[in-house]
Amino acid sequence: MEFTVSQIAELLGGKVEGNGDDKIKMLGKIQEAKAGEISFLSNPKYEPHIYDTKATAVIVSKGFSPKKKLNTSLILVDDPYSSFTVLLEEYHKFITFQKSGVEDPSFIGENSKVGIDVYRGAFSYIGSNVKIGDNVKIYPHAYVGDNVEIGDNTIINAGVKLYANTKIGHHCVIHSGCVIGSDGFGFAPQADGSYKTIPQMGNVVIGNYVDIGSNTVIDCATFHGDSTKLEDGVKLDNLVQLAHNVKVGKHTVIAAQTGVSGSTTIGKYCVIAGQVGIIGHVNIADKTSIGAQAGVSKDTASGSKLWGTPAIDVMKYQRSYAVYKNLPDLNFRLKQLEEKVLNLPTFRESE
Amino acid sequence: MEFTVSQIAELLGGKVEGNGDDKIKMLGKIQEAKAGEISFLSNPKYEPHIYDTKATAVIVSKGFSPKKKLNTSLILVDDPYSSFTVLLEEYHKFITFQKSGVEDPSFIGENSKVGIDVYRGAFSYIGSNVKIGDNVKIYPHAYVGDNVEIGDNTIINAGVKLYANTKIGHHCVIHSGCVIGSDGFGFAPQADGSYKTIPQMGNVVIGNYVDIGSNTVIDCATFHGDSTKLEDGVKLDNLVQLAHNVKVGKHTVIAAQTGVSGSTTIGKYCVIAGQVGIIGHVNIADKTSIGAQAGVSKDTASGSKLWGTPAIDVMKYQRSYAVYKNLPDLNFRLKQLEEKVLNLPTFRESE
Amino acid sequence: MEFTVSQIAELLGGKVEGNGDDKIKMLGKIQEAKAGEISFLSNPKYEPHIYDTKATAVIVSKGFSPKKKLNTSLILVDDPYSSFTVLLEEYHKFITFQKSGVEDPSFIGENSKVGIDVYRGAFSYIGSNVKIGDNVKIYPHAYVGDNVEIGDNTIINAGVKLYANTKIGHHCVIHSGCVIGSDGFGFAPQADGSYKTIPQMGNVVIGNYVDIGSNTVIDCATFHGDSTKLEDGVKLDNLVQLAHNVKVGKHTVIAAQTGVSGSTTIGKYCVIAGQVGIIGHVNIADKTSIGAQAGVSKDTASGSKLWGTPAIDVMKYQRSYAVYKNLPDLNFRLKQLEEKVLNLPTFRESE
Repeated sequence: MEFTVSQIAELLGGKVEGNGDDKIKMLGKIQEAKAGEISFLSNPKYEPHIYDTKATAVIVSKGFSPKKKLNTSLILVDDPYSSFTVLLEEYHKFITFQKSGVEDPSFIGENSKVGIDVYRGAFSYIGSNVKIGDNVKIYPHAYVGDNVEIGDNTIINAGVKLYANTKIGHHCVIHSGCVIGSDGFGFAPQADGSYKTIPQMGNVVIGNYVDIGSNTVIDCATFHGDSTKLEDGVKLDNLVQLAHNVKVGKHTVIAAQTGVSGSTTIGKYCVIAGQVGIIGHVNIADKTSIGAQAGVSKDTASGSKLWGTPAIDVMKYQRSYAVYKNLPDLNFRLKQLEEKVLNLPTFRESE
Repeated sequence: MEFTVSQIAELLGGKVEGNGDDKIKMLGKIQEAKAGEISFLSNPKYEPHIYDTKATAVIVSKGFSPKKKLNTSLILVDDPYSSFTVLLEEYHKFITFQKSGVEDPSFIGENSKVGIDVYRGAFSYIGSNVKIGDNVKIYPHAYVGDNVEIGDNTIINAGVKLYANTKIGHHCVIHSGCVIGSDGFGFAPQADGSYKTIPQMGNVVIGNYVDIGSNTVIDCATFHGDSTKLEDGVKLDNLVQLAHNVKVGKHTVIAAQTGVSGSTTIGKYCVIAGQVGIIGHVNIADKTSIGAQAGVSKDTASGSKLWGTPAIDVMKYQRSYAVYKNLPDLNFRLKQLEEKVLNLPTFRESE
Repeated sequence: MEFTVSQIAELLGGKVEGNGDDKIKMLGKIQEAKAGEISFLSNPKYEPHIYDTKATAVIVSKGFSPKKKLNTSLILVDDPYSSFTVLLEEYHKFITFQKSGVEDPSFIGENSKVGIDVYRGAFSYIGSNVKIGDNVKIYPHAYVGDNVEIGDNTIINAGVKLYANTKIGHHCVIHSGCVIGSDGFGFAPQADGSYKTIPQMGNVVIGNYVDIGSNTVIDCATFHGDSTKLEDGVKLDNLVQLAHNVKVGKHTVIAAQTGVSGSTTIGKYCVIAGQVGIIGHVNIADKTSIGAQAGVSKDTASGSKLWGTPAIDVMKYQRSYAVYKNLPDLNFRLKQLEEKVLNLPTFRESE
């Protein structure tokens, strides 16, 4: 990557103050950037760094007025943070999308269709009747089972496993080691205490702009025709577990190592922290927020904020925990009071 | 799949009421099934659906007597749920066992023996001195280390990693990303605060009819000749962790993201929920039941039901938690009482 | 492996009592060892086994004086446990390091350099501009992205995925399914409630003598030039999650299924148990010890021992939990006291 400050300003719809002809090769943090790099200033607490940054240019808010002399050029925009994000994305595309073509050996089954500009890494496996859109990247050791469909511009990283019949939208990123569409955990108890495996015959359907972290597992639905579903814009972190028939609504974010049991529905715009457990067959309403390690065992109300196991209102949990930390003291106070009351002259009389 | 209603009734040992010649192509839920599909009615709460189902046939209990006119054929059996399970299994076999033969390129080392009707997917790796039974399916990217043994009819899904010397019985299903036989977490503390890795030289031995979920990890035993062991019929969900020298008894079920530390023994017919942690070197007795996210730190009695961290009797935990939720109120009541008692005229007199 | 007792004594710098010419083929536990095997006695509670062990030789402390007649040879050393560890390591090297050469097919990109005595398993993938040291073992299905560097004697097990730019030191062991360098979980919230992916452009840098368990995930740092870092001697168990920009100090040990959120720094010589969660942007001081399933939400002091969610001093947590288990009783006592006080004649008078 090599652009002038002016070219970048044009991309961002911003205005240059300083030398528009300087060359930018890389992005960096304002306090660490070197010459040839561009940075941004969004949080006012970082303002002191702009006066001694070595960055060639800094993206700032239109309202920014420097309190000292600057040794860097400025690009003035409406929202420096979001503008910097745009740059990061452009840079990332530039790096990532260098991969293209087919490395040898790779495998592709019968009746599978692949779009244009697709990368198929060595040892990648594509089954039969698969449909792959344009500009998709299938990294080495990825496994794409029979009848899978993958939309345009989606990245399937090294070693991802997609079971047969999985459907993934466009502009998704699936990270390494992720398993999508494996059998749900369904067993019919038998009279002798053993279990019979209930075959899982549904699939997984994933919307657009969905990101899924490394080694996350999403099971398929139990019945043929049913799907475990992730709507557009869902973001899953690493090592998350979604059981059969789970639904996750638009733009919900789930942090690492959280597990969701079978047939639970999670609404839109929820924020679920790490290591949370959610029981099966409940409804998590839109905009629910759940604290780390909480265990949710029933339906939630829209916009509720929960913590603890079983999860209750976060404020309530914190207030209870404050008392919990001093339970031995509380117990001691109670004991003292018991003794006092029992030793009251009037109390002894009244008995 | 295409069978007549009569053929299915014969397979299930059931009796047809209606048209035995109708064709069945697929299985479905009673409320969603379409013409050409078969469903079942087991839970009475779904009975209303049988009167307007579009299913061509429904499996019902011998004792079922319809309260309205039916538009579907019936197959009468002793236990509709278990009969439907049989059908699901047959259907699944039909679909799954289409895979056979050897895809190219795949790797097989010296002195390895492979049974009949085995599928070896492209990029599957089989080491040296491996023994693989009949009708085994080894999917793409599966790694089967040296000296591994796999029994008849077992399915090793895409990307499973079996370290050297692992033994797996017959009719098992191992899901993608599962790692079996990796080194246990054993380190000898040194005088300078560092650790020396203790080589792990045992193996993992898995019985028959065992199902293991995606990305689950089972470490090998520490000593040569020792094994981490799963008995027949054990069912492990996704992302479970079993440390070195763990033993799991027959027909025990462990849900997702649960972790069991080294040398712990789990009995038969236990039910362990998700995200549970069990400390090392303890005995979990037969038929122990452990609630989600519990942390078990000592031996359990047979048939005990536990919850919490550290885990205690589930009823006790729930009763304590009920009070916990109101701890601030309890604390307030105690404070009030303290004030009252201290302000009692008699109490002040008696001091 | 076949050595004489004398040869082993020489390796360990120990002294033989008994027959130095006996042949040793294998290592075993003192209570289970067979003829031809060597064992050790370190913990006095196992002393009774030495009088009837079938082991050909036993490694004991120089101070050991048998109370009965022995049927085994002895090797006297300063520290039997640590001597046995040395033997285990030698044995393990012997077994493990048989693998060498290049199996076919395997892939290597442009400008990549590989040291001497390197094993490259079938279906292993090495990208472009990769540097691999001497005696490194790259097992089947391992993925080594572009620009990765791996030091001498490091073992990359089957199916490990190393994203581009990852750096790993010498004498490390990375277990199967491990993903290193995948994107951190960073998303910029947009005005409409959706999220924009923040590209993650840093890398992961791992020191020497680091062991990493199966299916563990370590995300790369967010900014170019930044790294998620593991110092020398760090030991991570299976299914651990380290988010972007996490640092882990020398000789810190982290047990299975623990998760550490973004930008948290963990000091040296810490011991972190299983299923622990640590929030982002905190400092865990050197020698902090954290109990299983704890949830750490703020900075810790050096040498502190913590438990609970949110984590507090372990003794404090245990004392509170002791009262917690009897909360219903405490509540009942308080109720009784309230009734007594309200019913006091003097109290009723005083109102």
